[in-house]
Amino acid sequence: MLYHKIVEVREKIKQWKKEGLTVGLVPTMGALHNGHLSLIKKSVEKCDKTVVSVFVNPIQFCPGEDLDKYPRTLDADEKLCNDAGVDIVFSPSPVEMYPDAQMLSNDFLTYVIPPFFYTNKLCGKSRVGHFDGVCTVVNKLFNIVQPDFAFFGEKDRQQLIILKKMVKDLNIPVQIIPCPIVREENGLALSSRNKYLSEDDKVNALVLSKILFNIKSCYNEGMKDVKALTETAYSFLNDRHSLEYLEFRDADNLEEKTAADNNTIVFIALKIGNVRLIDNISLV
Amino acid sequence: MLYHKIVEVREKIKQWKKEGLTVGLVPTMGALHNGHLSLIKKSVEKCDKTVVSVFVNPIQFCPGEDLDKYPRTLDADEKLCNDAGVDIVFSPSPVEMYPDAQMLSNDFLTYVIPPFFYTNKLCGKSRVGHFDGVCTVVNKLFNIVQPDFAFFGEKDRQQLIILKKMVKDLNIPVQIIPCPIVREENGLALSSRNKYLSEDDKVNALVLSKILFNIKSCYNEGMKDVKALTETAYSFLNDRHSLEYLEFRDADNLEEKTAADNNTIVFIALKIGNVRLIDNISLV
Repeated sequence: MLYHKIVEVREKIKQWKKEGLTVGLVPTMGALHNGHLSLIKKSVEKCDKTVVSVFVNPIQFCPGEDLDKYPRTLDADEKLCNDAGVDIVFSPSPVEMYPDAQMLSNDFLTYVIPPFFYTNKLCGKSRVGHFDGVCTVVNKLFNIVQPDFAFFGEKDRQQLIILKKMVKDLNIPVQIIPCPIVREENGLALSSRNKYLSEDDKVNALVLSKILFNIKSCYNEGMKDVKALTETAYSFLNDRHSLEYLEFRDADNLEEKTAADNNTIVFIALKIGNVRLIDNISLV
Repeated sequence: MLYHKIVEVREKIKQWKKEGLTVGLVPTMGALHNGHLSLIKKSVEKCDKTVVSVFVNPIQFCPGEDLDKYPRTLDADEKLCNDAGVDIVFSPSPVEMYPDAQMLSNDFLTYVIPPFFYTNKLCGKSRVGHFDGVCTVVNKLFNIVQPDFAFFGEKDRQQLIILKKMVKDLNIPVQIIPCPIVREENGLALSSRNKYLSEDDKVNALVLSKILFNIKSCYNEGMKDVKALTETAYSFLNDRHSLEYLEFRDADNLEEKTAADNNTIVFIALKIGNVRLIDNISLV
């Protein structure tokens, strides 16, 4: 069932809660691919009812980012959801989510702001305010859907860590279920933004996973020093790659590591032309 | 029933929700007086079950404020609640609410931040960060108790307006019930901070309500100009009074008024010695 209105969703959810059914939420920005599908399948399996939200959230885009050209494929998304056994596809308009659409700054809108220590690094460094927008919209979706479980991909690992922190700090009665990255056979992590890549650059994009897989094997062979592990990456890069970061951080609190251990995540972001790609791997 | 642990409250609430009972929440900082009691009575009347939280929230106090000496009277508060038919008194420790008690800054804690336009005026001007602390703790309490209704006094009118805005902006499934100011017969608005006043200063404190009542009669007699209405206040003040603000603002969005109308609130704050008192009146 496709709903555009908050009140329709609330009504349905109320009915389910009355029947004692559990609800899973998969928040997405649409342009669904097999990565999303893996989250959806997990929710359908685990919960009595599954809601997939499809909303390109304006307040998590920074000036100059791809808000306008972000892929929107609602018909295909709805079909994928229906085939997967989703109960509600919730696709609100921007004005349904932000009724004073002309006043989206923190001058006029209440924001949920994750801690500075979690947002002043990695993607948060170049995407200032991005995670404020993410936490605010996820909080809104949680309040609208009141799910028992919410499913997020490990592809956006910093986001996942920040959302877990939000849930803990604000005592939100939702359990976050992390879902592993889905990759193409060649290693490329699935992302809606892969659609922006030319055929040539799809090959160039393999460098992210190659670097991460190689670091993981070096670690497994006994290399722990972060400086040495970082240096293994450079031979993979060519002129087409503009590396934004390659960092080793704690899986819970994002503290920087100097020696890698089993609670370390390796994060990478780079640009190929205008397309910014991210990936990460857990060293456990 | 007195509970100190979040998990105990959740367990009880879960049971009530299963039985389809409605829940009212009255968030307080304790030191309960007849003002609080009026909120509690309203909740007991309106809801199947009532929870009163008693928590002196450290993150809404600014440096130099009265966090340590704020009156704490839990035994008396519990008795008052029991006599009024309250079902749960929830009195968590600071560390129960903020497990990383040494990390309460926005460097390490997720905050709910109301819009700057709502907080850069009136009490927010001298109490920087106060409403961030209020919104964050109320959000936490909402998530812990999941009430259908929450009761707040109009005494803290800026707080009430900000919380209504928070509920709307974040789609929080709680209905805020505003409750009128309770006054002593002489006009003094009840406040836990009245305990700080000497007998002499209790008389001096009457100036707040006198100024507001007088402005309201002038308004009712046809005076609309805010400048003229403001000037009626000055003759009430003496050397013991240090006026912080006297402002006319919109009841919904706190915009400044130059001409008073039926959607205007008159706000006053002043200090008598070290004791800061606030009051307000609706011109409707």
